[in-house]
Amino acid sequence: MKIVFLLYEEMTALDFVGPHEILSRLPHVTSLRVAVKAGPIRTDSGLVLHADLSLSDAREADILVIPGAENATSLKTHPHILAWIRQIHQTTTWTTSVCTGSLILGASGILDGIKATTHWAAFERLHSYGIKPTRARVVEDGKIMTAAGVSAGIDMALVIASKVVGPEFAQTMQLALEYDPNPPYDTGSPEKAPKALKDKLARRMQSIFEK
Amino acid sequence: MKIVFLLYEEMTALDFVGPHEILSRLPHVTSLRVAVKAGPIRTDSGLVLHADLSLSDAREADILVIPGAENATSLKTHPHILAWIRQIHQTTTWTTSVCTGSLILGASGILDGIKATTHWAAFERLHSYGIKPTRARVVEDGKIMTAAGVSAGIDMALVIASKVVGPEFAQTMQLALEYDPNPPYDTGSPEKAPKALKDKLARRMQSIFEK
Repeated sequence: MKIVFLLYEEMTALDFVGPHEILSRLPHVTSLRVAVKAGPIRTDSGLVLHADLSLSDAREADILVIPGAENATSLKTHPHILAWIRQIHQTTTWTTSVCTGSLILGASGILDGIKATTHWAAFERLHSYGIKPTRARVVEDGKIMTAAGVSAGIDMALVIASKVVGPEFAQTMQLALEYDPNPPYDTGSPEKAPKALKDKLARRMQSIFEK
Repeated sequence: MKIVFLLYEEMTALDFVGPHEILSRLPHVTSLRVAVKAGPIRTDSGLVLHADLSLSDAREADILVIPGAENATSLKTHPHILAWIRQIHQTTTWTTSVCTGSLILGASGILDGIKATTHWAAFERLHSYGIKPTRARVVEDGKIMTAAGVSAGIDMALVIASKVVGPEFAQTMQLALEYDPNPPYDTGSPEKAPKALKDKLARRMQSIFEK
């Protein structure tokens, strides 16, 4: 089984590394990290990741994972990336995204009429591209699976692990990563965070998205 | 403020990227990724990360973060890494670890008499190095903060963000990462997972640790 992760400049590292930590450990899997050009990719936190392959060297995938970024929609101006996504999507069992990665899938044209989610602060943007906005941590519609913001990619990968290998495997992965969250606050969703804090962050993130 | 992350061959990427995603966004922070030698570092999931600096180029840190690995205790045989940790520790406000990173801190000699935690499957190993084993997601003792397995680094980073910048900042980071976990199972700790599943994974992980 081949799992292809798209990397690109200014992506958010955790969107990718969360699912990668789980999916790369599926049995009999080859994980490929693919970018426009193989080599170093600088993420939006300054960390540099290495892409193994260029787009033209990856022509199929059982699972495709598209991480998000603050500037995710800037990939709209890269038609060869969108064409590559459409091509890979034709070969997949699962086409997936984390955070604003769903806006990239949308821009590629494959989410028309499809239920999908994204980072809460980008949620209204899902109305583009014919997407049916759906507020949930992980949303599945046919072979498309989309996760909410950043850390939701971990939950999505556990769902994929359960479907592809089985519940016992997914449970074992959860235990191996000791994914038993106990953060010091309970402000991880816009429904739970104080309104003033949420509004302030929403304004800041939306102004970044506009760039 | 300077935050130094130690990278090393066969480390676990998520141990590092979880805290990095949060701590690198603290205000007025410089994040440095440091390894024995600057350049590519292959993690235990095949992902290659880039270290910016060699050990000798990093001589102080406000916060030091040591990620874990299945082979973490193999760093015992690298006395120059342990000496570097001891040196940096003298300059820190916080010296921290994720997962089996605490065993590396222990091997460096700075956890003698200190309460600390680690990945649940490595917990018994904490009895080495004079450590006082403490089962919790995040353990604080003086300026040492240690997190449980892999994903616990995210929770630890939120605790650090709260202490260093303030609760509102930490809450905002939690919301920005949409860290409102909702995994498909509740098997993320040995206390919650089915006993047979836990025992099987413990045997497998412990045989890896023995290598």
